[in-house]
Amino acid sequence: MATHLFDPTHFHSTIGTHHPVLVVEDGDTIITSTLDCSGRDQNLDVRHVGVNPMSGPFAVSGAKPGDVLAVRFDKLTPSRKYGWSLTQIAPNVVDPTDALDTVLDWGVRDSDWNIDTEANTVTLTGPKTNLGPLTLPLEPMIGCFGVAPSGGQAISTATSGNHGGNMDFKGFGEGVTIYFPVAVDGALFHIGDGHAAQGCGEIAGTGVEISFDVEFTLNVIKGRSIQWPRAEDDTYLMAIGNVRPLDQALQHATSELIRWLKEDYEIDEVGMACLLGQCVEYRIGNVYDPAYTVVCRIAKNLLPRK
Amino acid sequence: MATHLFDPTHFHSTIGTHHPVLVVEDGDTIITSTLDCSGRDQNLDVRHVGVNPMSGPFAVSGAKPGDVLAVRFDKLTPSRKYGWSLTQIAPNVVDPTDALDTVLDWGVRDSDWNIDTEANTVTLTGPKTNLGPLTLPLEPMIGCFGVAPSGGQAISTATSGNHGGNMDFKGFGEGVTIYFPVAVDGALFHIGDGHAAQGCGEIAGTGVEISFDVEFTLNVIKGRSIQWPRAEDDTYLMAIGNVRPLDQALQHATSELIRWLKEDYEIDEVGMACLLGQCVEYRIGNVYDPAYTVVCRIAKNLLPRK
Amino acid sequence: MATHLFDPTHFHSTIGTHHPVLVVEDGDTIITSTLDCSGRDQNLDVRHVGVNPMSGPFAVSGAKPGDVLAVRFDKLTPSRKYGWSLTQIAPNVVDPTDALDTVLDWGVRDSDWNIDTEANTVTLTGPKTNLGPLTLPLEPMIGCFGVAPSGGQAISTATSGNHGGNMDFKGFGEGVTIYFPVAVDGALFHIGDGHAAQGCGEIAGTGVEISFDVEFTLNVIKGRSIQWPRAEDDTYLMAIGNVRPLDQALQHATSELIRWLKEDYEIDEVGMACLLGQCVEYRIGNVYDPAYTVVCRIAKNLLPRK
Amino acid sequence: MATHLFDPTHFHSTIGTHHPVLVVEDGDTIITSTLDCSGRDQNLDVRHVGVNPMSGPFAVSGAKPGDVLAVRFDKLTPSRKYGWSLTQIAPNVVDPTDALDTVLDWGVRDSDWNIDTEANTVTLTGPKTNLGPLTLPLEPMIGCFGVAPSGGQAISTATSGNHGGNMDFKGFGEGVTIYFPVAVDGALFHIGDGHAAQGCGEIAGTGVEISFDVEFTLNVIKGRSIQWPRAEDDTYLMAIGNVRPLDQALQHATSELIRWLKEDYEIDEVGMACLLGQCVEYRIGNVYDPAYTVVCRIAKNLLPRK
Repeated sequence: MATHLFDPTHFHSTIGTHHPVLVVEDGDTIITSTLDCSGRDQNLDVRHVGVNPMSGPFAVSGAKPGDVLAVRFDKLTPSRKYGWSLTQIAPNVVDPTDALDTVLDWGVRDSDWNIDTEANTVTLTGPKTNLGPLTLPLEPMIGCFGVAPSGGQAISTATSGNHGGNMDFKGFGEGVTIYFPVAVDGALFHIGDGHAAQGCGEIAGTGVEISFDVEFTLNVIKGRSIQWPRAEDDTYLMAIGNVRPLDQALQHATSELIRWLKEDYEIDEVGMACLLGQCVEYRIGNVYDPAYTVVCRIAKNLLPRK
Repeated sequence: MATHLFDPTHFHSTIGTHHPVLVVEDGDTIITSTLDCSGRDQNLDVRHVGVNPMSGPFAVSGAKPGDVLAVRFDKLTPSRKYGWSLTQIAPNVVDPTDALDTVLDWGVRDSDWNIDTEANTVTLTGPKTNLGPLTLPLEPMIGCFGVAPSGGQAISTATSGNHGGNMDFKGFGEGVTIYFPVAVDGALFHIGDGHAAQGCGEIAGTGVEISFDVEFTLNVIKGRSIQWPRAEDDTYLMAIGNVRPLDQALQHATSELIRWLKEDYEIDEVGMACLLGQCVEYRIGNVYDPAYTVVCRIAKNLLPRK
Repeated sequence: MATHLFDPTHFHSTIGTHHPVLVVEDGDTIITSTLDCSGRDQNLDVRHVGVNPMSGPFAVSGAKPGDVLAVRFDKLTPSRKYGWSLTQIAPNVVDPTDALDTVLDWGVRDSDWNIDTEANTVTLTGPKTNLGPLTLPLEPMIGCFGVAPSGGQAISTATSGNHGGNMDFKGFGEGVTIYFPVAVDGALFHIGDGHAAQGCGEIAGTGVEISFDVEFTLNVIKGRSIQWPRAEDDTYLMAIGNVRPLDQALQHATSELIRWLKEDYEIDEVGMACLLGQCVEYRIGNVYDPAYTVVCRIAKNLLPRK
Repeated sequence: MATHLFDPTHFHSTIGTHHPVLVVEDGDTIITSTLDCSGRDQNLDVRHVGVNPMSGPFAVSGAKPGDVLAVRFDKLTPSRKYGWSLTQIAPNVVDPTDALDTVLDWGVRDSDWNIDTEANTVTLTGPKTNLGPLTLPLEPMIGCFGVAPSGGQAISTATSGNHGGNMDFKGFGEGVTIYFPVAVDGALFHIGDGHAAQGCGEIAGTGVEISFDVEFTLNVIKGRSIQWPRAEDDTYLMAIGNVRPLDQALQHATSELIRWLKEDYEIDEVGMACLLGQCVEYRIGNVYDPAYTVVCRIAKNLLPRK
């Protein structure tokens, strides 16, 4: 259960079977840093050209295809005071005819935000709007992370899939554990694209983009097989579907949660219909990128004791 | 500001330009009752054959096409102890290949629930499952309601549109005000299909179905024009899109919320991108019926003072 | 097998259980006329206000819910020389970001076409374009037609469903027989919205719009049950799905064709996979209106003899 | 304008920046062979494990990102008599509830076909069905081909994108020229997955799968920029969109065709609306794989002379 400090020197804009920068043991913790989505570090220096640069990949000894990799986000800390966001509403989230009026003149300019890690706030500092002051709670989350996909694929960090990727779900903050299907030896975990705050859907095309100091713990789970990412925090079990359209992402997420509840809680079919029918919750991750993200979740206090 | 007691004797399974059962003044309150979605009343007597029977329609004097009708749900009270739900997971919310395994043998049987209005709980009483006891908070909501659509249409209460209809959003409970575009003289408000509890999406095809005693207040707003239903409670402004697929419902809801924020809060484009991009929330109503429902909402405490 | 001449005097912009203008016997032929989609007749006089005015409905004695109504288009003849089309590309058929460039300045103006029933041509006469001369073959088709839906619904002629409606499939021309599920006594057939020519998808929002003289024959088929419209000409069996999104319309159409091939040709599952997998053809009707239309068809010469 | 004979020895199941097996000059022709989608060659020997093995990649000297690569299919000849297809209908092309009945018992077995290159026919030889004899015209086409995508991506040959890939459009046969946006030096053209026949949509998950001898010519076009693949034969200009859902694939294809017509034919907006509105044709490629394919095409004889 070692803790590794790792200072990344190069980055990837695909998630793939890249050479691991560090090989750790099952259960180890890694402390490292991530660039913001535009490749800028804590000093605003550009360290990488390409979308959503990933730190890593980090390999875990003994992880094999068919296993599950559990990633716990122990700490997510903005490493600078300056955050930024794009000033747009994505054309694909408004009516086709409204795109004309709504988005046309906006351009895609940066808005500036101040991150206050003591007050735990994120405050819009410019450009000037007629919103009045806008101060939001600081809610650090990771937008893009995942494991190498199967078959030698190298998938752009602009998108997502069953390997994870650019999911932009605001529930992926400190204290959450995310489970991925391992497709290659060592699993090869990639991480980057931190947000200080973000609405559902990431409909501006960004959250409040920020560089991060991150600490996370990697565990290999043998003898499990999952098809889509799963996640868990103190309150919820979550299953994640990443694809267009939203209808299909919702199908993947729902099916994955049903499989989880069957496997781990042995919930029968009548129970599943009563439980999910009356208690399931859906949340929407990214609706900006090539694949959309839907989260299907259930409160753990509703589940039978294992 | 009169209060009218109305005891319905016949019901409709379409929302259309039906003869009004009562004409009230702007600002009046109506106390009436609704059948459950299968047409059964507080004594479990079948009073109507056809899906989601509507009480009404109720006309408001002076409401004209182009106005807005505001409906405030003052009280929603289950009028019997027995609730029921279908025992299925809809094939359209799981993976096409999983439908084979997941849904095939389930059939569509009733599950039984006990409604306790003193303890404010909803408890599954049968059939037997291996869930253990399942007791949920009583959260009364109206599944289907709306105003007569334009052009002489009569739209089935199985579906929804910009006139409202079968939206099945769990946020439509006591204390919410919903705004509809008026399409015919008198607006012609219809209401029915009460649920004691319901998950997101109504993916079992029902909530916990129940007859209701309802009290609501109708106000006509002149000089406003809306394209899709809007709603408001103490916490949120909400805009609702009703259509398949989810992607398009989300577009309608987002566009409608943007229009609202422009009209009433004069939020400029930069402010809109910052506010919605970092703070918008999406919720999912019905994903079971011919039209799906997406709610796009923003917390009122983030908005500039009017 | 009588032939009825009927001169319509009023029209409907919904398809519903309207009072029949004529009651005919099973097998009878009707000769009547239709307005263009804007309500203009052969003299360009406006005879109806409202989209896609329907002539009819025509009732057939003995047609009962659960039967099938077969409609054969015997003759479709433009009744004037002037056709027109909208000058737009629908925002929903181009990329959301391209809508800005592509459609913004176009407005929605009429283009004018000359219909020559002797030369069998349709020629663009204005406004001036840099296309050079544009002369197309005259291919008369009916855009919107169908039978009264179930449950007292009255469905706008802007959209479509399993009752038919605004399908805008260019294959619905002379010599085609279309089959509808009967939902009300007498079936109540409605017809209108003739086009002299039209591309796939009706992506300008119109075909070349024209008033028509029409002749069609109505037959009731007992003991059959269909879920979506079917059609047949000398070459193809066709099944039609009407809904958004395209993916779901394709599902409805494919399922309906499979049912047809099982029922009438007793094709087994292995045969179905070989036949449809290697020979099925899809065509796209309307992608402009609230519901989209997909046609799934198979050449009749590939089928076993009945 | 050399002609190169190339005998492939290894294959790829991703399309990416793989080491080129051959570097040719602009305008050169390559004669090579392809495995069937299961990795079997002309002797039915398995030569590669992994879906849709690609021969190549073939580099073209001087091709740079931002250029266009034109690929002309000169000859496509089945290299063995045995073709096969899967015996299924994909669950995603039928109604969710019908999947239960329709597909459940089918399994996924091979059907066998005899390819007769003299008679130009494809004949089902087994298993036994009640279709009677099924003989189709031999229509050789390439299912999967394309150029290396940008940014170091390696994209599975199970899917498609703007780099090409697994499009399965039956119009991609002999005599067609396909244009791809070049994303890496040399373009890196991949080719494989030949079909002797195929229905629209490839809804059985395969065409009649066969190994091929292929001859194709590669030309680099400087100073053009395209966003999606384009294609051309004697009759049509075609633009191709590859994505889920179908609605979005249709949008990409339509936008790309509009760009083409503007660039090469200087068609103005009014002309575009008249031409496409009344004459555009849509065809459906793959609706089986992760990305669907829609082709938007226009007959060349309708276009102004260049």
